[in-house]
Amino acid sequence: MLTIVGIGPGEPGGMTLEAYQCLERCDCIVGYHVYADLVRVIFPDKEYYTTPMTQEVERCLWAIEQADAGREVALVCSGDSGVYGMAGLVCELAGDRTALEILPGVTAACSGAAVLGAPLAHDFAVISLSDRLTPWEQIERRLAAAAAGDFVICLYNPASKGRPDHLRRACDILLASGMEEDRICGVVHNIGREGQSRQVMTLAGLREYEADMFTTVYIGSRMTRRIGERMVTSRGYRKVPAGRCEN
Amino acid sequence: MLTIVGIGPGEPGGMTLEAYQCLERCDCIVGYHVYADLVRVIFPDKEYYTTPMTQEVERCLWAIEQADAGREVALVCSGDSGVYGMAGLVCELAGDRTALEILPGVTAACSGAAVLGAPLAHDFAVISLSDRLTPWEQIERRLAAAAAGDFVICLYNPASKGRPDHLRRACDILLASGMEEDRICGVVHNIGREGQSRQVMTLAGLREYEADMFTTVYIGSRMTRRIGERMVTSRGYRKVPAGRCEN
Repeated sequence: MLTIVGIGPGEPGGMTLEAYQCLERCDCIVGYHVYADLVRVIFPDKEYYTTPMTQEVERCLWAIEQADAGREVALVCSGDSGVYGMAGLVCELAGDRTALEILPGVTAACSGAAVLGAPLAHDFAVISLSDRLTPWEQIERRLAAAAAGDFVICLYNPASKGRPDHLRRACDILLASGMEEDRICGVVHNIGREGQSRQVMTLAGLREYEADMFTTVYIGSRMTRRIGERMVTSRGYRKVPAGRCEN
Repeated sequence: MLTIVGIGPGEPGGMTLEAYQCLERCDCIVGYHVYADLVRVIFPDKEYYTTPMTQEVERCLWAIEQADAGREVALVCSGDSGVYGMAGLVCELAGDRTALEILPGVTAACSGAAVLGAPLAHDFAVISLSDRLTPWEQIERRLAAAAAGDFVICLYNPASKGRPDHLRRACDILLASGMEEDRICGVVHNIGREGQSRQVMTLAGLREYEADMFTTVYIGSRMTRRIGERMVTSRGYRKVPAGRCEN
């Protein structure tokens, strides 16, 4: 049996009970080394098989082979197992022979939103700025479409060593789409891990922000406000009593 | 202290450990009666305060008042606490006096996706078809924008008693936007609860599907395929060995 497990941000408290129980039960844990190391702290006595970034296919094939050989294998993904996770690739690679189970987890869009307040309280779009597997032109088209639809936008992979300027380029596309410079935005760094930090800012500020691969970015819709230190998108409950809302 | 808790689909296994511990610890559990009843099965001896749909403001104000009076209150939301949940409304209603914590949960987009396979493996948009708090014209604009951006689309609240034809109208907008009739779509009913079911179908089939308020709907992007019984969006790993992928 192969189970693809979304582990949430990484601490046990952010895992679902069934994810935790699956990791406790399995023979072998497979994953990208950064995520596997988060799990190793909790389950130090398991067998681990880890590979670096760009070795996703090899990692999934190894997990499938082990499961086909009769072992209980858990393939761990940070956040959710499906959202930019390995569930898709495993479904593509696995034949009918492999018994597969997919356990969802709390994806960074949701765990980061909880740190900021409630930016995702209304319709939203999730876009990865990584052009490792997606042409940059398609990422640009999606940014423009999300702005046109007035979605709250959550950005994954806003930067990495090879692409430090992707967030600035994304902000420029949003500004060119007519989004105002003082649109409320937010960032969360190291969600649910040591050194977690958050910041609410404007789109102009976000354009200058130095993100890295552990940053999740939120760009508000027209219904998003700063309330104290929080970033909140109103769902439009019409009966909110006047005077109780700060914005 | 007031904690807004995303409980996931409803079974304890789908809750995070910290959500479970919060419910175990609190004095009083507040929620929409359908979700509170899911929790009551697990924690039958707690005090409960429930209100029906449309009573969200009253429910949140009651929770805030109890917390301000010094009680440990958990306000439960199905799925995530932020995604169409109560976190936003509480942030709007609570003053500086209230100590607030927001615990995220597995939202239906992710838990339903895990049942179908991996439809959300690439960029996606989440749209609610409920026009209770959002003008229908805005929902139409977002559907058209999501189609233009070639997002995978996940629909919440595809139908209810008062609006049985919203899903059909949404499909018509997508078709009018140029989406092909055989675009791969999927539905999951009663995610993570008794009687859970799933179905992979085309957009033409989805147009005829009778959804209810316990259905979550997925409309694939151009990169979405049916693989066996599963709905999978390819992230485009270029090194997938030929012959190992069924589509």
